[in-house]
Amino acid sequence: MRAVVLHSYGGPEVLTVEEVADPVAGPDEVLVDVAATALNRADLLQRMGHYPDPRKVQPEIPGLEFAGTVAAIGRRVTMWQPGDRVMGIEAGGAYAEKIATHERQLLAIPTGIDLVDAAAIPEVFLTAWDALVLQGGLSSGRWALVHAGASGVGTAAIQIARAIGARIAVTCSAGKAELCRSLGADVVLERSPHDWLADAGRAVPGGFDTVLDVVGGEEIDRNLQAVAPRGTIVQVGLLAGGNVQVNVGLLMGKRAKWVGTTLRARPIEEKVTVTRRFAAEMLPLFDNGTLRPVIDRRYRLDEITEAHRMMESNANAGKILIVVG
Amino acid sequence: MRAVVLHSYGGPEVLTVEEVADPVAGPDEVLVDVAATALNRADLLQRMGHYPDPRKVQPEIPGLEFAGTVAAIGRRVTMWQPGDRVMGIEAGGAYAEKIATHERQLLAIPTGIDLVDAAAIPEVFLTAWDALVLQGGLSSGRWALVHAGASGVGTAAIQIARAIGARIAVTCSAGKAELCRSLGADVVLERSPHDWLADAGRAVPGGFDTVLDVVGGEEIDRNLQAVAPRGTIVQVGLLAGGNVQVNVGLLMGKRAKWVGTTLRARPIEEKVTVTRRFAAEMLPLFDNGTLRPVIDRRYRLDEITEAHRMMESNANAGKILIVVG
Repeated sequence: MRAVVLHSYGGPEVLTVEEVADPVAGPDEVLVDVAATALNRADLLQRMGHYPDPRKVQPEIPGLEFAGTVAAIGRRVTMWQPGDRVMGIEAGGAYAEKIATHERQLLAIPTGIDLVDAAAIPEVFLTAWDALVLQGGLSSGRWALVHAGASGVGTAAIQIARAIGARIAVTCSAGKAELCRSLGADVVLERSPHDWLADAGRAVPGGFDTVLDVVGGEEIDRNLQAVAPRGTIVQVGLLAGGNVQVNVGLLMGKRAKWVGTTLRARPIEEKVTVTRRFAAEMLPLFDNGTLRPVIDRRYRLDEITEAHRMMESNANAGKILIVVG
Repeated sequence: MRAVVLHSYGGPEVLTVEEVADPVAGPDEVLVDVAATALNRADLLQRMGHYPDPRKVQPEIPGLEFAGTVAAIGRRVTMWQPGDRVMGIEAGGAYAEKIATHERQLLAIPTGIDLVDAAAIPEVFLTAWDALVLQGGLSSGRWALVHAGASGVGTAAIQIARAIGARIAVTCSAGKAELCRSLGADVVLERSPHDWLADAGRAVPGGFDTVLDVVGGEEIDRNLQAVAPRGTIVQVGLLAGGNVQVNVGLLMGKRAKWVGTTLRARPIEEKVTVTRRFAAEMLPLFDNGTLRPVIDRRYRLDEITEAHRMMESNANAGKILIVVG
């Protein structure tokens, strides 16, 4: 099969498309013909050598999510048949024409969602839902604050918060505010030169019950100021750095909780658990359009370097897809 | 009644004993003849004006815990009768001959525990149990790390960890190590000039499932290094300060949780809930000696300034009692 292989770490030019051996599905696994994969910030880190695949497989193929059709099933597989439309997340290996994964980590692609477009769903909707609801305790009536509202995770978070009856404020740059509003954000806080913290205080004076942060850096101190008493800050990323001065007195005085989380580092049983809960609680909401993938643009597999450059420029709003099949 | 009143904030000399009006019990409240109260670090902060009583009652009487006998009951009280031996925590007002409190916040003094000695139980055992078990998720077989092992909270934490089948390491100064060992600490880590973090890594290489920290300051970075993957740091105090440089990457990479907590700031329904659970799950363990109050020394109410000076000197190991009745 063709796949994107990392022989060294560095800029987008280290991504090379080449022929590699097909993966082989184990007895509980499904072999998927990949129709599309999608880019994640973590892919850029992995490409630069800062976020290795925990499975340590060779050759190293990046790619955390995929959509496609079932090509073959292992002998103990009961949930899927060849031809089924499936999508899912993996710890790596999705920038490829085929991928093998545990049957219980797969999700059925909702009726009405295009096979390629479905690749924009798994990573960001699972991440946002796990962070907001499972880790962050968001529920109806409560307020969420999500940074980078026009990012993949941000656009998923806005829709999920609305779908469960919660209210949501997002930060974003000025040019992306309209997308956030159109997805249903109750409050859009434009970053720099604006002081989003003061704006947030006026819009939601009681503070935020759940803060989802992929940015870190200078936002960390503001998160502690913005979180409500007994609220939860869920740290999903540290794109702007993580070595910062912190006023721990705010954490104590508010009796707040600060949780670090990642999906990729989890053992298989935890990944399956969150996937099956997502299948039961979130997947039905794609059927009536309550949830929908937000796609910025599509590239072909042999345009992978351009796709990475696009994400590094921060110009995208929503997901960048790689059409494989 | 006689009580310690704060007319101004400052050193121990601002604590004055004087005659004030007796408190009056409301319909759900119990009036207690206080036999003894006990000192807490928070009392020193309150005396210096840094930790005001959230109830804003006048005159301002410090004191967060007490033991005594029921003097009178409100008309809706069903749990207690005059003469019953009771102990409890309050947001203030315990440096006094009488205190009124909600009936469901009271605990029966275990048989075999002296009436005065019982004042050494409520604040530190409730704080340590709530922090380790309810906030920190400590359970049998798991490892706790507790700073200031010879403090009131530390001595309670050691006993509680042992009682529930958990294992515990404590930090303390060299002179207090023997007390910590005698109470059952599995590992005693002497602070300065020793590097407790390296010693902890050798003794418990997998890291600590629950870290209970009353110190803050420089310990905060070490806590993040010492906590186990998916572990919880419970921040109960910041005696050494809370404005610190933090490596948030450790929180994320370990998928750890960092929780701020205080007992005093909680609303009545939360205080009652934790008190009733403590009554059911911990109080029976005082009957057979599994748990026992650890008392450093006793002062009379009119020696309150000396008692505060004693705590400020950090020389005590266990609780400092004030005999009132």
